[in-house]
Amino acid sequence: MQIDGKPHRTIWLNINGWSVDIIDQTKLPHAFVTLTLTSMHEAGHAIRTMQVRGAPLIGATAAYGVALAMRDDASDAALADAVAFLGEQRPTAVNLRWALEDMRATVAPLPPEQRAAAAYKRAADICDEDVETCRAIGINGLPLIADIAKRKAGKAVQILTHCNAGWLACVDWGTATSPIYQAFNAGIPVHVWVDETRPRNQGAALTAFELGHHGVPHTIVADNAGGHLMQRGQVDLVIVGTDRVSANGDVANKIGTYLKALAAHDNGVPFYVALPFSTIDWTLSRGADIPIEERSADEVLKMTGRTADGAIAEFEIAAPGSPAANPAFDVTPARLVTGLITERGVAAASAEGLTSLYPERALNSVA
Amino acid sequence: MQIDGKPHRTIWLNINGWSVDIIDQTKLPHAFVTLTLTSMHEAGHAIRTMQVRGAPLIGATAAYGVALAMRDDASDAALADAVAFLGEQRPTAVNLRWALEDMRATVAPLPPEQRAAAAYKRAADICDEDVETCRAIGINGLPLIADIAKRKAGKAVQILTHCNAGWLACVDWGTATSPIYQAFNAGIPVHVWVDETRPRNQGAALTAFELGHHGVPHTIVADNAGGHLMQRGQVDLVIVGTDRVSANGDVANKIGTYLKALAAHDNGVPFYVALPFSTIDWTLSRGADIPIEERSADEVLKMTGRTADGAIAEFEIAAPGSPAANPAFDVTPARLVTGLITERGVAAASAEGLTSLYPERALNSVA
Repeated sequence: MQIDGKPHRTIWLNINGWSVDIIDQTKLPHAFVTLTLTSMHEAGHAIRTMQVRGAPLIGATAAYGVALAMRDDASDAALADAVAFLGEQRPTAVNLRWALEDMRATVAPLPPEQRAAAAYKRAADICDEDVETCRAIGINGLPLIADIAKRKAGKAVQILTHCNAGWLACVDWGTATSPIYQAFNAGIPVHVWVDETRPRNQGAALTAFELGHHGVPHTIVADNAGGHLMQRGQVDLVIVGTDRVSANGDVANKIGTYLKALAAHDNGVPFYVALPFSTIDWTLSRGADIPIEERSADEVLKMTGRTADGAIAEFEIAAPGSPAANPAFDVTPARLVTGLITERGVAAASAEGLTSLYPERALNSVA
Repeated sequence: MQIDGKPHRTIWLNINGWSVDIIDQTKLPHAFVTLTLTSMHEAGHAIRTMQVRGAPLIGATAAYGVALAMRDDASDAALADAVAFLGEQRPTAVNLRWALEDMRATVAPLPPEQRAAAAYKRAADICDEDVETCRAIGINGLPLIADIAKRKAGKAVQILTHCNAGWLACVDWGTATSPIYQAFNAGIPVHVWVDETRPRNQGAALTAFELGHHGVPHTIVADNAGGHLMQRGQVDLVIVGTDRVSANGDVANKIGTYLKALAAHDNGVPFYVALPFSTIDWTLSRGADIPIEERSADEVLKMTGRTADGAIAEFEIAAPGSPAANPAFDVTPARLVTGLITERGVAAASAEGLTSLYPERALNSVA
C-alpha cells in the first residue's frame, strides 16, 4: 500500500543485502521511523516490543530473524537456539510458530555453509507469498462488500474493524483490510469504523494511519461504541483479522473482538474473519486451548502521545497506585462468526468449512 | 466516602453560605481540586464540561444552579431561563430534568422574595435525599454480593463495573458502588474489575480513584477485556449505573455498557443496574427513544495525562487528520438485565418490575 504516494512494504532487505529494515510501529502514528535489524536478538526484540506486530508480519520477521542467526552461526545448535528464542517472543500468534517451522524445515537439511543463503531466500519468499496470500484474501472478500454495495444505492458500505489487521500487520495489503482496499480501489464507496483498540490503540494509531494515507474514508471510535453503532443500523459488515484459528473455527484475536462479535450477532450484522492459511492451528480442536498473552499493566496505565508542541511523550492516565490487568487477546466462538475469508475462498467457521478450503489438511488429520 | 481518611461529598455549600463547592472531576485522578460555583452559568458550565458528571450529581448541581439563579434574579422569567438553560447542558440523564422540575415546582408558587431561600433549602434537601437513596441502594444490593460470597468460601467476590457510578457520580455512596462499599464495610471480601471507560476514562480515573481511597481491592482493565474475563469465569457479578431507564426497563448508560451486558448474558453472569427513582423516565416506553448525546471527537483523539515530571498535559493519540465519532451512551435492552437495584428494593427490568417497586406510578399512568 502507499505512504504519501510511495508504495511500501512493512519489512524489506536493507540495501546492504543482509540486514533487515522494518517500520517501527511503536512510533506510529506520531512519527514514521524505520529501523534496521542486524541480529536475531534485534529481530526478537522487535517482535516482543511490538515494533512489528500482526500475525503475518510477526512470522515474516521471525523468518528473517532465523536468516540473521544463520549469518552469524549456521550450526545446528544456533538454528535450534534461534527457533526457540524467536518462538517465545509472543505466545498467541500461530504464524510465528508456522514461520519458524518452515524455516527450520528449509534450513536444517542443508550443510551449514549453505544455510544462511537459503534462509534469506526462504524469508524473502515467505514475504512475497504473504503479499500474494493477502491480495487473494482481498479478492475473495471483495464480493461480500460488492453485494452490500448493490443494496445501498450509492451510499457507502459501512464496515467496522477492530485492531489492525491491515497492511501494517502483514507485508502488504493486510488481511481484514485487503477486501476493503480492493473495494476502494474498484471504486465501491466504503467507510470504515475504526475501533481505537485499547490498550495499545492499534486501530486509532495504525489502521487509521494506513487507511488515511491510502485515502479510504474512515472514522475512529472508542472500542465501547461498536455495539451502539450496530444497534442503530450504522454497520453493514464487520471484518477482523485473527492471531490463531483453531481447527473448529474458533478465533483468537485482539482483546475485545469477542464483544463485537456478540453485538454483530445480536443485531444481525455479518461478522467475517480474514486470515491466511498460516493462521490456522490444526493441532488445536477448540479456541479455549489457545494461550492468551498477558501483557504489561503499563500498557493500560500509560499512553504515548504527541503534546501541543509536537513532542512525543509517555504519560500516566489512571488513578495513581491502582493496578491493571492486560489480557491481549480473546477467543470468539465459531458460532458467532459468519464466515472465514482466506486466500482460497470464503467458508463457514467450522471444521467442515476449514477442511472444505484445505482438504489436504483433512487427509493429514486422518493420517 | 473518604479521601485520605476525610469524609467527603461531591457537592456542598461554601462556607460563605451561598456559593456552591464541587470537586473538579476533570482534574481527577491527577489532582484533587475543588471549584466554587457562583452563578447559574458556572453551574451549567460545570455540568456541560463534566466537572460534575453522573446522573444524580448532575441533578444536584442543577438544583443548586437554580438556587444561584434565584439569588441573582427571582423573577418568573429568570426561573424559566434557569430551568431551560440548565436543562440543555446534557441531554441523556433524566435526573437533570427531574431535579429541575422539582425545583420549579418548589419555587414557582412562592413570591419572588422567598424563592432564593426556598431554592437553597430544596437543593440541600435533594442532596441529603440522594445520600439516603444511594445508601438504601447499597443495603438492597448487599444480599446479592453476600449470597455469592457464601458460595466462594472466603475467596473475593469478583464484580465488574463500567464507567463511574460511584460516589463521585452522586453526592455520596454512589449507585453501582453502594452495594460494593456496603459489602466491603461489612467485611465481605470483594474485588472490582474497573473498566477504564474510554473515551473519558471515568473508570480508570474516577472509579479506581474512589475505590483506592476507600481501600477496596480493584484492578483496571481495558474496556475490551470484560468479555474475556467472563469467558474465563473471573466475573461473578456485573453492577453498573444508568443515566436513564425507560418504563419498560431498558437502560441507557455509558457507551459500552451494552457490550458488557451481551457478554454477561452469553456467560451466565448476573448483570444488575443500580439506580435511584429519579433515573426512571416514566414517559418513555422504550429505550430506543432515549436521546443519545454525541460528544466532541477530541475526547477520542486526545487524552489528558501526567508526564514523568508530574505535569498535566493534553496529548494527541490518534493518526493525525483522522476523524472520530463519540456517542456517549448506549441502550442495554431489558432482556439482558438480570435486575434493577433501587432504594426500594430489587426488581426485574420490566414494566411489571418497575411498577412493583413504584406502584404509585402505575396509578399515575392510569390517571
